[in-house]
Amino acid sequence: MPAYQRIAAAYRGMIMSGELRPDDRLPTEHEIADRFGVVRQTVRTGLGILVTEGLIVARRPHGYFVRRREHMVYRPQEKSRPRPATPEMDRFSQQIVAEGRTPHQAIEVSLVQAAPDLAQRLGIAAGETVVARRRVRFINGEPTNINDSHFPIDLVKDSEIMSPAYLPRGTDQVLADLGYRQDRAIDEIFIRMPTPEEIHRLSLGPGTPVAAHYDTGYTAAGQPVQCTLNVLPGDRHKIVFERHWQGEPAG
Amino acid sequence: MPAYQRIAAAYRGMIMSGELRPDDRLPTEHEIADRFGVVRQTVRTGLGILVTEGLIVARRPHGYFVRRREHMVYRPQEKSRPRPATPEMDRFSQQIVAEGRTPHQAIEVSLVQAAPDLAQRLGIAAGETVVARRRVRFINGEPTNINDSHFPIDLVKDSEIMSPAYLPRGTDQVLADLGYRQDRAIDEIFIRMPTPEEIHRLSLGPGTPVAAHYDTGYTAAGQPVQCTLNVLPGDRHKIVFERHWQGEPAG
Repeated sequence: MPAYQRIAAAYRGMIMSGELRPDDRLPTEHEIADRFGVVRQTVRTGLGILVTEGLIVARRPHGYFVRRREHMVYRPQEKSRPRPATPEMDRFSQQIVAEGRTPHQAIEVSLVQAAPDLAQRLGIAAGETVVARRRVRFINGEPTNINDSHFPIDLVKDSEIMSPAYLPRGTDQVLADLGYRQDRAIDEIFIRMPTPEEIHRLSLGPGTPVAAHYDTGYTAAGQPVQCTLNVLPGDRHKIVFERHWQGEPAG
Repeated sequence: MPAYQRIAAAYRGMIMSGELRPDDRLPTEHEIADRFGVVRQTVRTGLGILVTEGLIVARRPHGYFVRRREHMVYRPQEKSRPRPATPEMDRFSQQIVAEGRTPHQAIEVSLVQAAPDLAQRLGIAAGETVVARRRVRFINGEPTNINDSHFPIDLVKDSEIMSPAYLPRGTDQVLADLGYRQDRAIDEIFIRMPTPEEIHRLSLGPGTPVAAHYDTGYTAAGQPVQCTLNVLPGDRHKIVFERHWQGEPAG
């Protein structure tokens, strides 16, 4: 591995394990150069990777500091829990307001040809028309994640889902009111680097990996009625699930 | 964004959406250079990123091809489902054998000082001694993921967990037999680039992002009894959860 990558990986490891804490100062470029037996430019290249990944910030002339990251806690299970019949805000807005921050969503609705990844999950042929409800979610004015829902057009063509307005009760409730109540969902999470469109929509540094979370919802009869692709930049999210042991009683 | 990163991001997007399928050939370096208005070296740098990420392979003199990826389906929920009292294999080995592939695990047991990330989850002070049962799991001889379990030493010091032998019934059952049956677990998933140690243990390309999955298990009384850090390279895994809607009946 080249020296600049060894330097990046070494400090990444110390930040990840908690050995270096938010706002801690890294050693100087000179000290790191000595430690690794390299020139300062190599140190700068290595630390530049961590700046791009969002792990550290350069505050000239003071040096490099571990970035204080506010991970948004992302809980897919909240989606399938009961909520008031006439909520004032959708779940995302509720969570962010409860955290004392300001949510905002940019929504656009379009008719698109289903790409193979979506078509397969919705049980339709690639290229068939689906309704895409595409959102970028902002916290305190910063783009935070992507949430693009897709619906077979026949299910939703006469509904509010076709309007690019904010729906406080959420699209899951609209689907339920249309007779397509979801009973079961599959969450599939892939880890990868972002696509050009994702980089653009989220103003990402190109070195920031993302989770691509497909949420596919099925009725009790097993019909897929929506597939949402959530794109979560790794420097801003932690995905959380809670599990209960099944089978034998605890004790 | 520099041109080489635009090229990498563009083809990454086509592979992710399924527009380019496994074994498809990418356009030639010459064609891509024309399309983006750059020199061939820039194309090579851009595609080199996708080679490092494990998305494409270069087969000289034929060109670049989309890699056929076998994602291991990684299901945290399987951990908390009942299994036979005297299984012949642990869950990982069972799954891999069922897929017609050959599993193998390298296990080492050590006493370590808990890093802050683990100490916090186990409810102990950073630096206290924990038993680390560190595993690299192999499929068909290839390192696939890391699975490092950590236990407060007082709970397990007289048990089989201290032996670096393979335990077909699994450490969760050993804990249960010791009186620490897990009742509830929290799964936390972070998306990031790998640390130097992870790159070394998994023979990773430095451009491959990973999921760091912390599984913390609690008894019915709320005592944390183990914390496992699973490191899953993004090019080899898909994480899957299944959810059932709660509250109102479906229909």
